[in-house]
Amino acid sequence: MNDSTGAATRTSPVIAIDNPEDERISVFRNVRERDVVGRNGFIAEGTVVLERLLASPHFRPTCLLILKNRLAGIEPLLHSVPADVPIYIADRSVMNLIAGFPVHRGVLAHGEPAGADPGIDVALASLAVRRKTVVCLIGLANHDNMGAVFRNAAAFEAGAVLIDRSCCDPFYRKAIRVSVGQVFHIPILRFETPAEMLAALMRHGFEVLALTPRGGEAVSGFVPNGATALVLGTEGEGLSPDILERTRTARIEISPQVDSLNVATAAALVLHHIFTRKQQ
Amino acid sequence: MNDSTGAATRTSPVIAIDNPEDERISVFRNVRERDVVGRNGFIAEGTVVLERLLASPHFRPTCLLILKNRLAGIEPLLHSVPADVPIYIADRSVMNLIAGFPVHRGVLAHGEPAGADPGIDVALASLAVRRKTVVCLIGLANHDNMGAVFRNAAAFEAGAVLIDRSCCDPFYRKAIRVSVGQVFHIPILRFETPAEMLAALMRHGFEVLALTPRGGEAVSGFVPNGATALVLGTEGEGLSPDILERTRTARIEISPQVDSLNVATAAALVLHHIFTRKQQ
Repeated sequence: MNDSTGAATRTSPVIAIDNPEDERISVFRNVRERDVVGRNGFIAEGTVVLERLLASPHFRPTCLLILKNRLAGIEPLLHSVPADVPIYIADRSVMNLIAGFPVHRGVLAHGEPAGADPGIDVALASLAVRRKTVVCLIGLANHDNMGAVFRNAAAFEAGAVLIDRSCCDPFYRKAIRVSVGQVFHIPILRFETPAEMLAALMRHGFEVLALTPRGGEAVSGFVPNGATALVLGTEGEGLSPDILERTRTARIEISPQVDSLNVATAAALVLHHIFTRKQQ
Repeated sequence: MNDSTGAATRTSPVIAIDNPEDERISVFRNVRERDVVGRNGFIAEGTVVLERLLASPHFRPTCLLILKNRLAGIEPLLHSVPADVPIYIADRSVMNLIAGFPVHRGVLAHGEPAGADPGIDVALASLAVRRKTVVCLIGLANHDNMGAVFRNAAAFEAGAVLIDRSCCDPFYRKAIRVSVGQVFHIPILRFETPAEMLAALMRHGFEVLALTPRGGEAVSGFVPNGATALVLGTEGEGLSPDILERTRTARIEISPQVDSLNVATAAALVLHHIFTRKQQ
């Protein structure tokens, strides 16, 4: 491994970090603690997620922190890192001290939004015209579930994920990882309240379908007309009666012996149904 | 809280533990470390999982360890604990020292199999006659996925889960938790090799369907005839060519932009399809 040779084969600089207190890598400092509070940008970890970040039209890396002995192995991926994005490298002990936990994957990136946000109404209008399906989350609390919803949304070509203020952060490190980096590719539309979210969907002519174990119709019989908005609620509690009263409701047929499905799994089932229906 | 009063309202004894080294609670000692190695029995945590364990026809608790201040809240559940199962209680500091990690849920149970194992051929013969669907796992490595497969298998009334020797342990604490205790209710049939598993399925006339992104038919067009065996492979790699050559293969229709679904989510999609098809 030779840093200067490595730097010569790509345009972005490779910079060795020996001191965990180095100010240049401060965005990676104590990642675990900073995950749970507000922060600027986000931390992506692992090569698969980094690859998705580099391919994203909505986000970009600001800098990378790579384990020294992983550099050679991910050389091809690093060729697509923009020239103005520094690549910091460190050995394992320094990297763990910086991050504040054992960074098994050896690949961290700090990222931020790129490009202008078109705004909610422009985005929804475009999605409605293209008859896309959107996933609407109200009070989703678990980061694994948040990530899994994005992974499933991507698998079945949902056009956006709408979240209300009470949802957990899709850019929390674990949510990014579980999403396999799909949070960087599916537009996220943020609303203060469920009422504002539903009003915007109605305004743009979405067919709103709220999922609940006591839904009025079985999902397997649902025939989508135009753009569909699938609404999902909090783990455990589900959607509030207030929301269910104002929307068309559907249920997934499951065993009467069983209480419920995982929310991201439920999303996958409905999205798959709509996806295959639209292809018929 | 009064221990003797608590004990008087049920038949199983409530015993206060003050010393983390007490031999009576040795099965709960260093739970986290013991999770990853072989052990006798298993550790179930949380009230929902305990409730499923108490209702299981295949497993039973041998003893419970409950956080003192949670005892009153779960009193109704404890009434269904068999009289010969001791209920140990401890305060938080003692409980954490015993378990070796912060036991947030405050409810631990040690359990073991109950009743005779009918044997693989008797079990498969019964499932085949009842035209049940079974889920077959080959090399499933992740405990979250293992638990989620059981949760989904229960939701869509699969009759058993078959695992080969290279799968991770369904009775690892986290797998039990993610399964919402369904590992205690769905029979598990264990095989040394995939070849032995497939041979047993063929012997009993199961229609074997192996899931792979390059499957020969789309799952949404699959019409089950009789008993179906859904075969799923390792995360990432999937099923080996050797297995795929010998079985009917199916794929889930997903976006060409996306590599794959989570394996437990894929299982849910196929099981839901078969479940609703069989009800038509």
